Amino acid sequence: MKRLAIITRFFLCLLLLTFSIVKAQPPRGPLVVSPEVHQDKKITFRYQAPRAKEVKLSAQFEKAPVSMTKDSTGLWSVTVGPVKPDSYPYSFQVDGITVMDPANVAYFPNERFKASMVDVPGEEPLVFAMKNVPHGTVTYEYYPSIQETTGSLVVYTPPGYEKNPSLKYPVFYLISGTTDTEETFFKVGRVNLILDNLIAEGKANPMIVVMPYGNPLARIAEQTGKPKPAYVMVRDGEDAIKRAQLFEGDLIHQVIPYIDKNYRTLTDRNNRAIGGFSRGGGQTLRAGFNNMDTFAWICSFSAGLSPAEMESNYKHIGADAKKTNEQLRLLWISVGTDDFLYQGNVAFMEYLKSKNVKYKSLLTDGGHTWMNVKTYVTETVQIVFKN
Amino acid sequence: MKRLAIITRFFLCLLLLTFSIVKAQPPRGPLVVSPEVHQDKKITFRYQAPRAKEVKLSAQFEKAPVSMTKDSTGLWSVTVGPVKPDSYPYSFQVDGITVMDPANVAYFPNERFKASMVDVPGEEPLVFAMKNVPHGTVTYEYYPSIQETTGSLVVYTPPGYEKNPSLKYPVFYLISGTTDTEETFFKVGRVNLILDNLIAEGKANPMIVVMPYGNPLARIAEQTGKPKPAYVMVRDGEDAIKRAQLFEGDLIHQVIPYIDKNYRTLTDRNNRAIGGFSRGGGQTLRAGFNNMDTFAWICSFSAGLSPAEMESNYKHIGADAKKTNEQLRLLWISVGTDDFLYQGNVAFMEYLKSKNVKYKSLLTDGGHTWMNVKTYVTETVQIVFKN
Repeated sequence: MKRLAIITRFFLCLLLLTFSIVKAQPPRGPLVVSPEVHQDKKITFRYQAPRAKEVKLSAQFEKAPVSMTKDSTGLWSVTVGPVKPDSYPYSFQVDGITVMDPANVAYFPNERFKASMVDVPGEEPLVFAMKNVPHGTVTYEYYPSIQETTGSLVVYTPPGYEKNPSLKYPVFYLISGTTDTEETFFKVGRVNLILDNLIAEGKANPMIVVMPYGNPLARIAEQTGKPKPAYVMVRDGEDAIKRAQLFEGDLIHQVIPYIDKNYRTLTDRNNRAIGGFSRGGGQTLRAGFNNMDTFAWICSFSAGLSPAEMESNYKHIGADAKKTNEQLRLLWISVGTDDFLYQGNVAFMEYLKSKNVKYKSLLTDGGHTWMNVKTYVTETVQIVFKN
Repeated sequence: MKRLAIITRFFLCLLLLTFSIVKAQPPRGPLVVSPEVHQDKKITFRYQAPRAKEVKLSAQFEKAPVSMTKDSTGLWSVTVGPVKPDSYPYSFQVDGITVMDPANVAYFPNERFKASMVDVPGEEPLVFAMKNVPHGTVTYEYYPSIQETTGSLVVYTPPGYEKNPSLKYPVFYLISGTTDTEETFFKVGRVNLILDNLIAEGKANPMIVVMPYGNPLARIAEQTGKPKPAYVMVRDGEDAIKRAQLFEGDLIHQVIPYIDKNYRTLTDRNNRAIGGFSRGGGQTLRAGFNNMDTFAWICSFSAGLSPAEMESNYKHIGADAKKTNEQLRLLWISVGTDDFLYQGNVAFMEYLKSKNVKYKSLLTDGGHTWMNVKTYVTETVQIVFKN
């Protein structure tokens, strides 16, 4: 009887605890399971919003937002698919407001929009799936950046890095897209798992991958407390070029020396690659073409430079194609045929062709997406640092 | 003239790029600056939601949600404060729906709610501020977990770890709260910066900090595709104890051996501490009391065990207080006087006192918050691993 009383008191106390946490923390709402990926590759999304008038699913596997329906408890849901196996960003549009899925901890790190991530597994595990293979690690680093600020970057080291203290590794620098952060290639691009899997299969050489933040000017404004110059915010135009130059200076004079000092790297140009997506792809091409003594492998993922910019700023690439072709072990150009930059890439490739500059291209289905970025990363990590 | 044409075409192309990105990515809306922390420590929050009827700010420095007002463009805003320097979780309540601030990349990793983070700097830099001191690194690891799943954890190594390959370090295991993830002590608790700063001042010994995920059962369900048992979801009661036991098994038999194998650790009990917040604090006390041969330092942050549970499960702690006091270099109990667990902590301390079990306590202002957790971490890392 006494035991029962103790147990009762114990559960009452726990009940109180539950209730109180709900009050003390940001409101949690009822438990919702979302997304639920079914065996047949259909997905059910759920969102609790009793007062909302309209909730839609916005997912990168759908061409347009999909209406969700509300039940009597205020739970909105929709089942879509079957969906092609991949990892996709999605969000809910609640009365026109874009929100992450509160029931899902997998998120898309970005400075401007909020999105969650959903994985649809393949019949065979996908190249970025968590498999039972040796895993590398992903490290968040601070480094001394330009203008006396502290920069942040994310570094992948391959399996065995810690156990082989005499080995040195080549380094692939990956620059993410507009308003992405230094976390995006890790959390959305799954670069670590792609490399774990391809290294395990012997398809990629062990390498270090360095993922810096692409917009040091924003960080400088933030850390120095100075008002942000207008070009922190804009994505394009002359100011975007200023920003790209700032990035390039930070990469060449701060990031690379920091990495070479703190990791066991091979430091010759043949052991340094650079690649980037979208804005980061533009920064990659600019930094790569300006620093051919630093990088022998240059990869553009859904980016490209206009023939006009090539002519005005990187004339040397085409003017001495023989030298370019000797120096560049790889000039990689990849884009989806539905990408809004597809025609720009065609023009870029036509330009290179007309100058006899060699490149490898991969044109895929799809648009300006991280699904495509994962494909391009998968392909290029199997090429770089090989003979 | 030709140059002008090239430039014009270039900018047109960039304009198109801007427009198209907006279409291809999740909707971004207009550029909003939020939060804006002013010199006088007031903060302006902004949220773009033309169709919303009511938007409120829910911030942990406010006792209740604060109404925001809408301008003619649909931009909601409010200026609050001055706010006491600290780092706070906040979110917007948009027609009753809790959302993160889309203009802010600093987020609170949690499985159930979405919140952003805002920093109000102090006149003197706070203990978790980014200072110009040597920085350690934070590494995301996968490890072989129970039931043939792959677990994830986050590891802080102190400045100089890589450069001193002959040095071995003590390890502090930190277990986060209910529905927090293995990222929360890093992203919200700022454990890495607290240690960087205190180590630089000579106030804390260099140490490794290991931050595991607190709910392996949820991960097992996720990875094995089995239906989740009910006790994945519940926070309390008998099933919560089952979950705590599973966590303890994973910690003792999987996490610690993995860390000792892959990091240069000191492996005796005097060089192992464990601490945790909320649910993680309960798991800490249970795992600590059950494994006194493993941990000599046990820290409860806003947690506590009931006298009833102490009597039924950890009787040995009070029954042989002399042994307990000899073994435990530190039993730390901290809680805010506004915490809903305050009375529970008083009862816990009364119980220990009645049994002559020694402990150190810190009662602070405030409630069940990560602001308090940062304070408790700051205090305890200056005590552990010292004579």
